[in-house]
Amino acid sequence: MRTSLNPDVLAALDALAPREFVQIYLVACGGSLSIMHPGKFVLDRHAPMLPADVVNAAEFVLRAPARLGPGALVILCSQTGTTRETVAAAEFARARGAATLALTMEPASPLGRAVDHVLRYAAPYTTGTPIDPADSNYAVLYMLLAGFLRQRGGPDLTLPLLASLAALGPVIEGAKSRLAPRFDAFAARVKDVPVVYTMASGVNWGAAYSFAICVLMEMQWIGSQAIHAGEFFHGPFEVVDRHACFILLVGLDATRPAEERARAFLHRFGDPANVLDLDARTLEPGGLAEPWRAYLMPLVFFDALWDFAYRLARLRGQPMLTGRRYMKKITDY
Amino acid sequence: MRTSLNPDVLAALDALAPREFVQIYLVACGGSLSIMHPGKFVLDRHAPMLPADVVNAAEFVLRAPARLGPGALVILCSQTGTTRETVAAAEFARARGAATLALTMEPASPLGRAVDHVLRYAAPYTTGTPIDPADSNYAVLYMLLAGFLRQRGGPDLTLPLLASLAALGPVIEGAKSRLAPRFDAFAARVKDVPVVYTMASGVNWGAAYSFAICVLMEMQWIGSQAIHAGEFFHGPFEVVDRHACFILLVGLDATRPAEERARAFLHRFGDPANVLDLDARTLEPGGLAEPWRAYLMPLVFFDALWDFAYRLARLRGQPMLTGRRYMKKITDY
Repeated sequence: MRTSLNPDVLAALDALAPREFVQIYLVACGGSLSIMHPGKFVLDRHAPMLPADVVNAAEFVLRAPARLGPGALVILCSQTGTTRETVAAAEFARARGAATLALTMEPASPLGRAVDHVLRYAAPYTTGTPIDPADSNYAVLYMLLAGFLRQRGGPDLTLPLLASLAALGPVIEGAKSRLAPRFDAFAARVKDVPVVYTMASGVNWGAAYSFAICVLMEMQWIGSQAIHAGEFFHGPFEVVDRHACFILLVGLDATRPAEERARAFLHRFGDPANVLDLDARTLEPGGLAEPWRAYLMPLVFFDALWDFAYRLARLRGQPMLTGRRYMKKITDY
Repeated sequence: MRTSLNPDVLAALDALAPREFVQIYLVACGGSLSIMHPGKFVLDRHAPMLPADVVNAAEFVLRAPARLGPGALVILCSQTGTTRETVAAAEFARARGAATLALTMEPASPLGRAVDHVLRYAAPYTTGTPIDPADSNYAVLYMLLAGFLRQRGGPDLTLPLLASLAALGPVIEGAKSRLAPRFDAFAARVKDVPVVYTMASGVNWGAAYSFAICVLMEMQWIGSQAIHAGEFFHGPFEVVDRHACFILLVGLDATRPAEERARAFLHRFGDPANVLDLDARTLEPGGLAEPWRAYLMPLVFFDALWDFAYRLARLRGQPMLTGRRYMKKITDY
């Protein structure tokens, strides 16, 4: 296992050390924004000294928060580094005097060039090559936040993070093989339905959001929505009948009771065959160390669900990455 | 017009005056949570001294943010004051030493009794009686925030707020009558479709969210999702075809360009007849004063859309408030 945070993270932390911060902004779009929600969860749980906001990049620039200034640390993310709104957000933040960091696969990209410090990460989906989960966007973001907490007088959570990242690969692979039969059955069940909702709370909400918007809507053109498990009971649950289809994440973080409550409702009033509820407790996360065991579950869920997505795509005859009609096909919007 | 903030607001502000705050939490569920998003928007724009978070009440208690303590002001909302998660959030916040305020119609309710200070409001929908918009949940929340900003060395925005609230009734009524023909046409268009998305950004996002979850999903059992206009281009837009149905709010706040961009896309790639885009510029908001003109638009949109909801409900033969199958029908979930 790694015995220290990755070099990009250490270099960024060194550069930030002399500065005082009163606000963190986590800024991106779509799938890259989805990882910022668990980032905020970690800060909310462990950083009494620093408030954190998660904001879509276009909204960030237009909203122009009054707290954005030299006391702000702005952490951005874009896989290719070319997302226009995110590049604009980086330039905007830097012009306001904020410190800017970007997670990206492409340090030489417009985003990489627009920020003070670049944190490289790897992703398996674009290349098809397996990666070390310690090189993923989640891992790099968590290393940054763990190092930042340690630097700012918060708890030192870096060692359990590094141990957990070293143990993560087998947990993800185990989850995929354990869930494969349920993925096949659920894909057959929902391949022709107009809407599949996703649901989670706490640290898992971002993964539910990403699967809804980047996979179901974007790549399969299936109606979807990420419903917060606590909000579910205040409107959305009225759509539940024997035909309603849900993917529910039941994690290990402090908000698990909210996800369990939603599961009980879905099993009681829906058709359990139309509910794909993934329970982290069944995914043998024993090698992961507290508190990161819970915080790494969205990555486990999302990577596993990617396998489900491919099974669904095959049944529907709509390939995953080439099935888009607008994204990367037209640019003048 | 009123010449000062309402008595509940003034009493709460007086009591808060000696205390120092480093964090505001805006906490509720469902429709009551939806008004907290514009509340945060106002604070983000005008309160460099205070960060604000919007959190579902169940999530709030389970997440147990590290910044929740004597330096936190927690503003809660529940129409009946009986929402269990919100009452629990108030008790939790108070036990942590935070200052607690509740907006509710029922001061004697469990929520009213659980907090330090109650701010009463009125709602037209439960009683069917017209109300003065200055007594609405939006108005009371905005009066509280305007008074708080003034008290904490921020800008004094109270006079334009009071002037705007006095002018609001005719703007809402004008919007309803101007939009009636479009509401009828769109209701006929979507009465049998499985999914109607809502979309907005900035100060209007909460109204889009509330209409999706509390009206379309809860009362009409129509699949829905509130899509952020900036996030739309990073996944959700791939569901757009000539059959996709959208309700889009185009407001007057700083994020209007994001909503305009989404509108242009929907008109280009969707069927304009399947897009109900409400543009604040066409709703004659001239009597409203800056900066509240923009901030009051979600209330105008939402109240007007309530008329659309009733038209849709009639065409579908599913009454609005009696059409629920779980909410207020069963309680053991």
